[in-house]
Amino acid sequence: MKQIENKVTPRILSGFMELLPADQISFNKYLSIIRDTYEEFGFIPQETPLIEAAEILMSKSGGDTEKQIYEFMKGDERLALRFDLTVPLARYVAQYYPQLVFPYRRYQIGKVYRGERAQKGRFREFYQCDIDIIGDGELSLVNDAEIPSVIYRLFRKLDIGDFVIKINNRKILSGFIEAMGLEKEDEALRIIDKLEKIGNEEVIRELVNLGLKEEDAAKLIELISISGSNEEILIKLQEIDINVEKFGEGVRELIEVVKMAYKFGVPEESLQIDLSIARGLGYYTGTVYETKMKNEEISGSVCSGGRYDNLAENFTDRKLPGVGISIGLTRLFSQLKSAGLIKEESVSVSRVAVVPMEGARMDFSLNAARLLREAGIKTEIYTEDTKLKKKLSYVNKLGIPYLVLVGEDEERQGKVSLKKMQTGEQWLMTVEEVISMIINK
Amino acid sequence: MKQIENKVTPRILSGFMELLPADQISFNKYLSIIRDTYEEFGFIPQETPLIEAAEILMSKSGGDTEKQIYEFMKGDERLALRFDLTVPLARYVAQYYPQLVFPYRRYQIGKVYRGERAQKGRFREFYQCDIDIIGDGELSLVNDAEIPSVIYRLFRKLDIGDFVIKINNRKILSGFIEAMGLEKEDEALRIIDKLEKIGNEEVIRELVNLGLKEEDAAKLIELISISGSNEEILIKLQEIDINVEKFGEGVRELIEVVKMAYKFGVPEESLQIDLSIARGLGYYTGTVYETKMKNEEISGSVCSGGRYDNLAENFTDRKLPGVGISIGLTRLFSQLKSAGLIKEESVSVSRVAVVPMEGARMDFSLNAARLLREAGIKTEIYTEDTKLKKKLSYVNKLGIPYLVLVGEDEERQGKVSLKKMQTGEQWLMTVEEVISMIINK
Repeated sequence: MKQIENKVTPRILSGFMELLPADQISFNKYLSIIRDTYEEFGFIPQETPLIEAAEILMSKSGGDTEKQIYEFMKGDERLALRFDLTVPLARYVAQYYPQLVFPYRRYQIGKVYRGERAQKGRFREFYQCDIDIIGDGELSLVNDAEIPSVIYRLFRKLDIGDFVIKINNRKILSGFIEAMGLEKEDEALRIIDKLEKIGNEEVIRELVNLGLKEEDAAKLIELISISGSNEEILIKLQEIDINVEKFGEGVRELIEVVKMAYKFGVPEESLQIDLSIARGLGYYTGTVYETKMKNEEISGSVCSGGRYDNLAENFTDRKLPGVGISIGLTRLFSQLKSAGLIKEESVSVSRVAVVPMEGARMDFSLNAARLLREAGIKTEIYTEDTKLKKKLSYVNKLGIPYLVLVGEDEERQGKVSLKKMQTGEQWLMTVEEVISMIINK
Repeated sequence: MKQIENKVTPRILSGFMELLPADQISFNKYLSIIRDTYEEFGFIPQETPLIEAAEILMSKSGGDTEKQIYEFMKGDERLALRFDLTVPLARYVAQYYPQLVFPYRRYQIGKVYRGERAQKGRFREFYQCDIDIIGDGELSLVNDAEIPSVIYRLFRKLDIGDFVIKINNRKILSGFIEAMGLEKEDEALRIIDKLEKIGNEEVIRELVNLGLKEEDAAKLIELISISGSNEEILIKLQEIDINVEKFGEGVRELIEVVKMAYKFGVPEESLQIDLSIARGLGYYTGTVYETKMKNEEISGSVCSGGRYDNLAENFTDRKLPGVGISIGLTRLFSQLKSAGLIKEESVSVSRVAVVPMEGARMDFSLNAARLLREAGIKTEIYTEDTKLKKKLSYVNKLGIPYLVLVGEDEERQGKVSLKKMQTGEQWLMTVEEVISMIINK
């Protein structure tokens, strides 16, 4: 059946992340902290297919997305791989609307696909870890204030360094732009979103190209550069005399959300109003968030999102406003790794390796392993019939903290030898004693 | 930017499974039991990309797989979606051989893709939950005996009904076929694998077509029909006079593995030798397993696998023997659901809903929720400013077991009203009392 003589060179595609055991164990710890934290706040798990009809996934797309999407035919269906978790969420909520309870609070953690040109820090396959709260017709601003409290708790638990949650309200920017008579608000916001990357001058040039007067562009830069404590920024904002309703609404919302977020337990120093936060995506309509690590080796926003008025408008006439955030875990992990911030985990998940010595019957070892597992201790058995040295080298290389040795002597006494690998200490004890020692450690 | 006036009908593709919240919560419970059990036995997590170069994934394929694979071009690369987790495992082990510790015990839980014609019980996207143990050069038979003990512990924990692990050794069948002078062993085994589906007569006809004498085909049927207790079957097997080394080796291995599996804690009534188990896939070379639920509404094998001599022969010259199993969780869940065997979980993961009453300040509610979470209790806050009735209906529909009501009265006393939804009992108590009541429940 198989006649291949030439071997295929084992490799993965560029732009894909694949990890060795120790890193995979670390990665999974982050995944599980994220999942646990989302559930702690009552977010319900959701899972949607990776493949959907292209028509569904592209229903909301602008130009850039279409170029990036993985698309293919199967039979006579045009299929595509999801490129985010938001479009599938919109489709899901519209599809199952009658069976869902609103506000619908869901999380989805899963891989998404973008056929980008491979470059450093860009992945073609990456994890997104999203939460969203979707209202039926309306959704209180309290939700906008809860989101930073989830981010705060989560990043504290991830324990990857100091961070700050930046917050803004898009209505402030778009109201300001409206007041200047420019209609292309979304495009202007996309230019502002590039501020950090391209700098003030280039932003002004692009805004002027878009149709803004040079002095108005300069005023806009002045607005988004307002700095100080949150209180100072809010006072300055209230002093600005702009006669466009949207602007005032944005200021009022921002004040309410920030004050409420404090009540949700977010400390003032972790929540920072930044009027330059615009978010590139067109669908945000109010509060927007970005999260920055203070460590400069972790660039960009590690957790972003915002409020949108109308999640599923391409699928339904119902008004379904929402607010949510997304973490791009693959990129974050890759940056942490490059910065040397990933704590080296053991290469194994086992806490104990049971190693039968030459001449020992397996029964006793197998029984010991079973008792350890039943006590909730992850335990593996070294199964190969090799020299003791090789057995010990296996346990060492995997970094398994405890070794349980079973030889003829031990069997005779109904005991095992427990060795703590880190210190080299060794005891002869019953399996019950081993269990209580490891559990109380 | 968006001018679409006509809505796109929200839908998913046929052959894909998507769940509503209660079912998704159940599904995730199974996933987490599987993951926890695999780790309990010291299997290390592995994760490979869903997309690989088509050349890699198809390196071992026979004919059927190629028709099923999702394949597409991106730029000038021919890509494909993985159709199982075994080929990626083989590629991974060959690629990272120098960095891995052997025996390499890994698990991978992830989705795989097969573009099959949609039909009942066939999914195009489904979860596989695999474990494999890979040796470097050789791998002791003890591993073949450990596998049934993992299956046994796992299916007990899944708690979905009685099951039996069927076990056989392919060398017995292929040795028998070799003794009859037929060289197309793999094809013969694939025919035998269909026995349950097509019946004795059709199997005999196909074997004869393949070149077997009719009386030899009948003898083969006689062999695979041997029944009785494991001990009886093993005695009968040892009495068969076949002068082919492979046959005897198969019998000896089967005896050793079954006896050792008992020592691993698998009870005799849960492990059943069944000489008709052949497994369709060509790469199995020794022990093979299938797991059947006693409930007849769950058809087919719910957990299958076996021993293979040479995992990665298409990628490397190294001999890497292994043994492993796979659970097709999507199909299993779908069958359990049809049979009414999925326990209805609550629609929410929250244990407590904190509901602020009209006129109450949010502070007190938010603080209560935070304390509950810090005590490890999943807690959500009802955020919308609606009538009390609507708030209670939300908690009811989601099946959240505890309601914490906070009104002006409660605030004044520094207490909350706790309501146990199932019984309607209600208490006025401090948040600390609520926590200890729920935790000690």
